[in-house]
Amino acid sequence: MKRPLIIGVMGGGSVGADDLDKARRLGGLIATNGWHLLSGGRDAGIMAASARGAAEKGGLTIGILPDNTARHASPYISISIVTGLGNARNCINVLSSDVVVACPGGPGTLSEIALALKNNKPVITMGFELKAIPGIHLGGTPLFSADTPEKVITIIKDILNNK
Amino acid sequence: MKRPLIIGVMGGGSVGADDLDKARRLGGLIATNGWHLLSGGRDAGIMAASARGAAEKGGLTIGILPDNTARHASPYISISIVTGLGNARNCINVLSSDVVVACPGGPGTLSEIALALKNNKPVITMGFELKAIPGIHLGGTPLFSADTPEKVITIIKDILNNK
Amino acid sequence: MKRPLIIGVMGGGSVGADDLDKARRLGGLIATNGWHLLSGGRDAGIMAASARGAAEKGGLTIGILPDNTARHASPYISISIVTGLGNARNCINVLSSDVVVACPGGPGTLSEIALALKNNKPVITMGFELKAIPGIHLGGTPLFSADTPEKVITIIKDILNNK
Amino acid sequence: MKRPLIIGVMGGGSVGADDLDKARRLGGLIATNGWHLLSGGRDAGIMAASARGAAEKGGLTIGILPDNTARHASPYISISIVTGLGNARNCINVLSSDVVVACPGGPGTLSEIALALKNNKPVITMGFELKAIPGIHLGGTPLFSADTPEKVITIIKDILNNK
Repeated sequence: MKRPLIIGVMGGGSVGADDLDKARRLGGLIATNGWHLLSGGRDAGIMAASARGAAEKGGLTIGILPDNTARHASPYISISIVTGLGNARNCINVLSSDVVVACPGGPGTLSEIALALKNNKPVITMGFELKAIPGIHLGGTPLFSADTPEKVITIIKDILNNK
Repeated sequence: MKRPLIIGVMGGGSVGADDLDKARRLGGLIATNGWHLLSGGRDAGIMAASARGAAEKGGLTIGILPDNTARHASPYISISIVTGLGNARNCINVLSSDVVVACPGGPGTLSEIALALKNNKPVITMGFELKAIPGIHLGGTPLFSADTPEKVITIIKDILNNK
Repeated sequence: MKRPLIIGVMGGGSVGADDLDKARRLGGLIATNGWHLLSGGRDAGIMAASARGAAEKGGLTIGILPDNTARHASPYISISIVTGLGNARNCINVLSSDVVVACPGGPGTLSEIALALKNNKPVITMGFELKAIPGIHLGGTPLFSADTPEKVITIIKDILNNK
Repeated sequence: MKRPLIIGVMGGGSVGADDLDKARRLGGLIATNGWHLLSGGRDAGIMAASARGAAEKGGLTIGILPDNTARHASPYISISIVTGLGNARNCINVLSSDVVVACPGGPGTLSEIALALKNNKPVITMGFELKAIPGIHLGGTPLFSADTPEKVITIIKDILNNK
């Protein structure tokens, strides 16, 4: 079975309106490209906005939930994976994604960027640029940045073509 | 969003032909009822047979993989969740399922039955009956048994109606 | 560094007085043999009784806690490992133990017996005997039973001598 | 039981001689202060150097290992916690530590800094200073920096006194 690409969209549970709007548009574009969207699944911030955008365009949305029930899942998540692992589920988020898109967020989002790089998953930051962090060798995993959802999609396609 | 039921099908990686055949038929019935099938996802035994049965009937199949890549996933798995957690992913198998069906297997399957009961998930054993285990209080979670895939489906529908 | 043996003691959070007494005596014997005791760490049942017994004899006690704080650790645990993983921490309990002793308990304890067998850890049941479970091939990992803490210690020494 | 403080020391598996030397001295100071040292436990880089320093001064060292055996543990680790969780064990590293000291490293170390901040654990970076990361709100958890092991110890004592 040829599986559709899974695009992980990470980002904060509490971010500004502009970032939410971009995340929703990104979700929509992921769906119209025939890809699945994966996120942390909760009904908050970037997770909810990107899932909503994908669901509105008929996309399949996967939520990797930290709790031991699906109670706090976004209503726009079609498949709830209930882990009961707390933040340890962040590893699953990146391991299950073919490409990780990081929107603005907090330490949880930073941990997902770091774990993605650690596991050689291409990372695209949307709305900010991560070039260097003092004391940390980010390693050789590709780290891209984009200003718009459309540009994110272009980078994903470039990554696919170069595989 | 009203989500389809997720039926977890657990069982050994190395079992007899009759058990594989039943698991494949069970997978097919899960799909024709409009439910999702969830399993440990590997390309072996009950996991592979039940995923095949569901995929053949157009069902959606979710595999919760123990490794840190999807390399060993069954080709009949449509959505690979890559955990990198080894047997700790057994918890996710049962937490993400609305009902757990246990086919014959080894200690891994036994751990999933136990974790399902621990987390109050209804368990249906197919092809064997688990009544009592010395030294262990199995608790109050419903534990059903069925001889055939058709009977498993009937029990699932009874469980749904009584919720 | 030659590390002391780690003996995992599993069992229910709510068991009878006789089982608690045996667990406490077992903990004491583990300590007087110079071994470390490892348990699920909570302040309840077999976990608390065995940790107390070991601590009273000056032993080192390791608790692998399910929560994301050490708040519910037994006061007799000297080293709290805070996992935040819920029942997924049961895997760590058995992987970190050289030998697993299972006292009477519920589904959580059953999952630990199963995960120990899955990972080729010798299991000793104390106070009950697990011979066969319908539908489950328990595999080739040694499964012993003992009636008393003293007999458990004898079996552990036999296991060590045969390694 | 009043438990000794657990100081988590994080850092890369492959770093320069000066950083290794500082980590070893830090380990020694942690031990002479009567605290336990916790690390990722592997026989490499900062993990091995800090464990060595603590063990040389008679300290107790805890290693939270990513693999499903203790085979790759540093010989200076006195207590091996075998998780089998891969990078998901990074969460346990920070949750089990009262204070996290981050030495230079790679994405794994960055994930541990992030997870520590996420879980409100005070973080001290040794040998570098982390002030701001574009796109990421680091939140309100205290983030200190120190140039020397001696200064790290002073900061830990300040943290303790202000609790």
